Amino acid sequence: METTVNANERRVEVCFSPALFSAYTQDTDCVIVVIDVFRATSAICTAFEHGIKRIFPVSTLEEAKAFQKQGCLAAAERNGEIVAGFDLGNSPLSYQHDRFVGKDLAITTTNGTKAIGVAKGSGKIIVGSFLNLKAVCEFLVKENKDVILLCAGWKDRFNLEDSLFAGAVVYHLKNEKQFTGLSDSSLAACSMYEQGKSDLNGYLKNSSHRNRLARLNLEEDIEYCLQESILPLVPVYHQNYLWLEGH
Amino acid sequence: METTVNANERRVEVCFSPALFSAYTQDTDCVIVVIDVFRATSAICTAFEHGIKRIFPVSTLEEAKAFQKQGCLAAAERNGEIVAGFDLGNSPLSYQHDRFVGKDLAITTTNGTKAIGVAKGSGKIIVGSFLNLKAVCEFLVKENKDVILLCAGWKDRFNLEDSLFAGAVVYHLKNEKQFTGLSDSSLAACSMYEQGKSDLNGYLKNSSHRNRLARLNLEEDIEYCLQESILPLVPVYHQNYLWLEGH
Repeated sequence: METTVNANERRVEVCFSPALFSAYTQDTDCVIVVIDVFRATSAICTAFEHGIKRIFPVSTLEEAKAFQKQGCLAAAERNGEIVAGFDLGNSPLSYQHDRFVGKDLAITTTNGTKAIGVAKGSGKIIVGSFLNLKAVCEFLVKENKDVILLCAGWKDRFNLEDSLFAGAVVYHLKNEKQFTGLSDSSLAACSMYEQGKSDLNGYLKNSSHRNRLARLNLEEDIEYCLQESILPLVPVYHQNYLWLEGH
Repeated sequence: METTVNANERRVEVCFSPALFSAYTQDTDCVIVVIDVFRATSAICTAFEHGIKRIFPVSTLEEAKAFQKQGCLAAAERNGEIVAGFDLGNSPLSYQHDRFVGKDLAITTTNGTKAIGVAKGSGKIIVGSFLNLKAVCEFLVKENKDVILLCAGWKDRFNLEDSLFAGAVVYHLKNEKQFTGLSDSSLAACSMYEQGKSDLNGYLKNSSHRNRLARLNLEEDIEYCLQESILPLVPVYHQNYLWLEGH
């Protein structure tokens, strides 16, 4: 006799824009996956892979500058481009250097760090990208809580690449017996991933931000960011920074 | 030589929640299609088919009562059910009577009338549902303006059936040469419709609101609302009411 099925049911919601986040939060006993595939969360995962110790996501250029004055590395991106006077933008490829080992980094981006900001205090926050897809799914299964997949979008609008990644997570979680509560947004995102998974770049070929990056000659970034599960790590938000737990 | 292609380009955006509407509005020279498939906009289309003259969408039960006291029919739905003391709820089937010919109706619903409220003043507002899909598309082609497909959602959350209908509109408009500016949300909605169009009810079988209605024994409403293009009419918002232009 099965009597405890409901007690172990976990909900999976996709929030397609930071502006909708308040409609999705119910209690703080959940995991929130912040998603900004092009390129903040891909860059954050890459930075940790190359030895960055802590990443402080901040909202403004001034806050990032203040960290820089204290000896931190500082990264700033606005409208797809690095801001003058900063060490880095949000191109993941620029983080592939061993000179970052053991360093701290402050980062501010158009959409990604804003999404982390709205999620603060509403649950355990982790960072997701195609690069660490498998590690994120394994983390969520192990945590065994409700999940909110928070897409950073583009200036509060829906975007295709973040939703596609959210769909990839749903696609994998729906095979786990505890994740039975798929919301409409999860069903929609999963449906997109099912259509796009055999050729992610092809699926995104008409998307606005992919084309914005292409105009900036960032095809190499796009191809890098669409690789699945090459980084076995999960950045977790702790106090006021991201880190790899236990490192 | 073609030199005026861009001048005739029209954008199509899908706004998945009334809470995101401000992120999508740019100027008022656009057509906004308000969508609440289950069931407000399906009911509104059906009411006009059966001779209702004007429909006043209002936000509160009190406003609807005030219209009722002045001799209007008054419809009120909250959480899927008719509110006590009102003539009608939002079941489209309840509007299939000839006793409504020439009457005015005030209506307030959980999501649909709220969506009309947020769209006011931002463009020409029309009402869409699967029932009048073809008429809506023809109207949009004729108007030849930018289009915002505004999904009523469920309490500001994304819902599947409204997004699916938005996708149906995109699916038809993208074959018209002037609608070349498809946003990410339009691409995503169209992708859903392409997956679901051969069996809309099957595509929605796990969706939350479809199941909410099924629990209320409204299978007949669901099947009715998912019929495509059976009503050749387009309700248009004018002053403070909906009507059929020229009637």
